[in-house]
Amino acid sequence: MIEFKVGDKVSQSKCFSYEEVQQFSILSDDENPIHYDKDYAKKTIFKKPINQGFLSASLIGGLLGSKLPGEGTVYLSQSLFFKKPIYVNEFVKAEIEIISINLDKRIIRFCTVCYNEAGDIAIEGEALVTVIKLHD
Amino acid sequence: MIEFKVGDKVSQSKCFSYEEVQQFSILSDDENPIHYDKDYAKKTIFKKPINQGFLSASLIGGLLGSKLPGEGTVYLSQSLFFKKPIYVNEFVKAEIEIISINLDKRIIRFCTVCYNEAGDIAIEGEALVTVIKLHD
Repeated sequence: MIEFKVGDKVSQSKCFSYEEVQQFSILSDDENPIHYDKDYAKKTIFKKPINQGFLSASLIGGLLGSKLPGEGTVYLSQSLFFKKPIYVNEFVKAEIEIISINLDKRIIRFCTVCYNEAGDIAIEGEALVTVIKLHD
Repeated sequence: MIEFKVGDKVSQSKCFSYEEVQQFSILSDDENPIHYDKDYAKKTIFKKPINQGFLSASLIGGLLGSKLPGEGTVYLSQSLFFKKPIYVNEFVKAEIEIISINLDKRIIRFCTVCYNEAGDIAIEGEALVTVIKLHD
């Protein structure tokens, strides 16, 4: 844990395509047409198809598991507050930042945010992870 | 909101295959080999590849968006506490149950749980949603 410090942060941007959002609807058994049916979406208050919340937020899991802390990360908890929609085919930027480290309990607390293409906070929350020695 | 009541619940079971877990690693830019590399996983304390937390939990989003409340659901928040790993190619059962309804604020609170194949709680948390009239 000594290699990490409060304030360390990493981010990842991605534009989820219609194909990827549809792929995720199938993966998660989500039949809600708001994610993939443009004609349906046009008649709703959103006007355009929106990403599944978990798809946008999955970038947070990707950052934790492969960038910071990376190898050996064990996810303990995640909170997600959905503030604004993220539209299909628009960029989402996920950013995670260490806000505290408990050396005794070996727990790292992160502030986790997803920004929409306009730069507004679309999803915010916190993650708790521990880092273990994965290999025997 | 009147059509819903405390105690209403729905569930969904799914066995995520290696191909689906790998697909989700690509979707979420997650390079952690624990999800798809059997040889790597064998040398870790997990012994076998494990699902991404967000992939298992995505079944909760699918249930909310397409079953209960279904159409018009707007996700407000979700908490996730990861208790046990869920292994690739094993069944996960997601279950959501209404635990309170605030008619004034039009907010429904759900208890959300994912069970692993052994029937143990692997992920637990709560979801808050509102239900809106989607069409103008």
